[in-house]
Amino acid sequence: MHAPFTRLVRDLGDIVPFVAPEAHERRLGRTFKLRLGANESAFGVSPIAQHAMVEAMEHVDWYGDPESFELRTQLACVHGVSVQNLVVGSGIDDLLCLIARTYIDSCQSVVMSLGGYPTFRYFVRGCGGTIHDVAYLRDSNDLDGLAKMAARTGARIVYLANPDNPTGTWQTAGDLQEFARRLPESCLLVLDEAYAEFAPAEAIPPIDGANPNILRLRTFSKAYGMAGTRIGYAIAARETIVAFDRIRVHFGVNRIAQAGALGSLRDPQFALSVARAVAEGRRDYEMLARELGLSTVPSATNFVAIDMGSFDRARATVDALFAHGVFVRMANASPVNRCIRVTVDRPARRATFAAILREVVASEATLQTGWPTSKTSAVFPSSFTGMIKG
Amino acid sequence: MHAPFTRLVRDLGDIVPFVAPEAHERRLGRTFKLRLGANESAFGVSPIAQHAMVEAMEHVDWYGDPESFELRTQLACVHGVSVQNLVVGSGIDDLLCLIARTYIDSCQSVVMSLGGYPTFRYFVRGCGGTIHDVAYLRDSNDLDGLAKMAARTGARIVYLANPDNPTGTWQTAGDLQEFARRLPESCLLVLDEAYAEFAPAEAIPPIDGANPNILRLRTFSKAYGMAGTRIGYAIAARETIVAFDRIRVHFGVNRIAQAGALGSLRDPQFALSVARAVAEGRRDYEMLARELGLSTVPSATNFVAIDMGSFDRARATVDALFAHGVFVRMANASPVNRCIRVTVDRPARRATFAAILREVVASEATLQTGWPTSKTSAVFPSSFTGMIKG
Repeated sequence: MHAPFTRLVRDLGDIVPFVAPEAHERRLGRTFKLRLGANESAFGVSPIAQHAMVEAMEHVDWYGDPESFELRTQLACVHGVSVQNLVVGSGIDDLLCLIARTYIDSCQSVVMSLGGYPTFRYFVRGCGGTIHDVAYLRDSNDLDGLAKMAARTGARIVYLANPDNPTGTWQTAGDLQEFARRLPESCLLVLDEAYAEFAPAEAIPPIDGANPNILRLRTFSKAYGMAGTRIGYAIAARETIVAFDRIRVHFGVNRIAQAGALGSLRDPQFALSVARAVAEGRRDYEMLARELGLSTVPSATNFVAIDMGSFDRARATVDALFAHGVFVRMANASPVNRCIRVTVDRPARRATFAAILREVVASEATLQTGWPTSKTSAVFPSSFTGMIKG
Repeated sequence: MHAPFTRLVRDLGDIVPFVAPEAHERRLGRTFKLRLGANESAFGVSPIAQHAMVEAMEHVDWYGDPESFELRTQLACVHGVSVQNLVVGSGIDDLLCLIARTYIDSCQSVVMSLGGYPTFRYFVRGCGGTIHDVAYLRDSNDLDGLAKMAARTGARIVYLANPDNPTGTWQTAGDLQEFARRLPESCLLVLDEAYAEFAPAEAIPPIDGANPNILRLRTFSKAYGMAGTRIGYAIAARETIVAFDRIRVHFGVNRIAQAGALGSLRDPQFALSVARAVAEGRRDYEMLARELGLSTVPSATNFVAIDMGSFDRARATVDALFAHGVFVRMANASPVNRCIRVTVDRPARRATFAAILREVVASEATLQTGWPTSKTSAVFPSSFTGMIKG
């Protein structure tokens, strides 16, 4: 009778959503020279945010405001909603956990794309929910397939990243609004917009705080360069925020992050300049791929999925890049697991990456006629996609 | 069919575990001049921690290590346990949420002291658990009563803060070990040691990483002065840490906090000097209380509970202190709700507090013969204890 965990926890396997670069480094016994696998920003933080964070250190001995009131007030202005439409969390992952806990009873249905963001899948499983997968269609979320699956399974939640991770593709606002209208009345559309700042305007639907069926997720981790501080937010109907307040960790968001987020909002030009620099980097990666006889998936994010043609080749390429000290990731399900996902870095490090990828592709062409099967993968036989541990 | 929350969330009332000083300030329309209600440290952070945090800003665009491996390695040395006995969270609150999610199925029993730390109660309710309360006995956790209640209700968890919050009292290691042995075999003792650094050595039982029935909680928020960064940890059996890894928010702890915690561990003298300064401050508060004809509860924490003799007088005093710009808190249940809980501040601000408390007590003596009933409480009729919102 030891270990009296809940039945759910006892039955869950040992899964971690992502194996971190640090874990790979510990196993490899050396640090990566390029860190292009976690879609962290290479363009720093706004100087105003930086200053605000250093200043916030002065009262690092005080708890942050559990209501993040000042930040929510600013965000309400930015998005044209009420403070009561906003909740702040320790990054989108924290909010995805909260969403699963708020909406998912045991055995309830959640619909998402096969190979989509594994962390939401992880939290849904952790609440006893059942995931119904819909395959990507031409490297995009299959809106028609997702809507049909939601109707068929009586889904409580449909999760959709737009722009998408790990593909980088995006839907138009019009298509998304039509999609949302097709979902069952009791279904919540979780629209993960972590990469919104990199997307064309046409990809972002207008925000409607009165709609209880759509929840938007935003973060300061990507364009704002604050991944290490852990802060993101959800925009949702008031009744949803009230429900979150009943179970969330009120004192979970740190004071430095709150100050940095406020600083970031005071410098809207900064994220725009990052988005421009990132767009340039995407073009570099696209040209590099073409030069190597490869194609890329169109991206509205800070990464590019380079199409290696097959899962086995993608996997071998990830292994080879690891061996060259380059951290990248790949999707964990077909058909998008034929791509490697590469974060846009600064120009000099993009050039380093280009040189290494050229070498890797050249050596693949010289040494091999076919691609290795899963069994011959050199570096991390079972964990390199980051999905399954051990 | 809108708002398809879980049954549990629909049935929960709108409770927040603590109303923050910032929320009070917004309602009052002015800031507190003394912030003595959240047991935040007044003694800053170690210069080594400070330096480490500023340095960590350099890579604030990178996610923190989700395994907090370096920090756990150091903590393992400090506590003489294995890395696999440790999990790091965004403060103890985050870990309390994780514990409730890992152990508590619907309707299962949790035992704690009536008026004890409300946040754990909040998370247990949020998982559908049932709290069985045991009244404080002579302002201490009633170990005999808690053990009997655990046996009677087949408790999954007994929660105990040692040193205790909100009373400040402590148990000896021997009594705690005897208490732990009396608990049902399937029961986890959650020993919240947030104030461990302020306690005498006799209050801290030896740590046994092999015991699956005891979990220890520690934080960098109190003696280390890092409340604003949100970082704490649990020491538990390996199987418990494995269970946590199945549902926790892996990327929830921020990089600045990880660096600051590591820096704090490199400066063990710092926390000792804070503990000494705090002990001096407790003596000041004790003398102040005696001067005013009041008594205090013996404390091994960074706060002192001043006994106002009755709930009504304690409440009136809290109201009056608020009106003078002083933020303090009080317990939310009898018998300890006859006390006001005052954080130890630095000497100059302790003198300011002393002057204000003298004035408040004098004006109470002049103006009133009896103490007001609940209905006449001036400032926050329903929320000033921080327990119930709205």
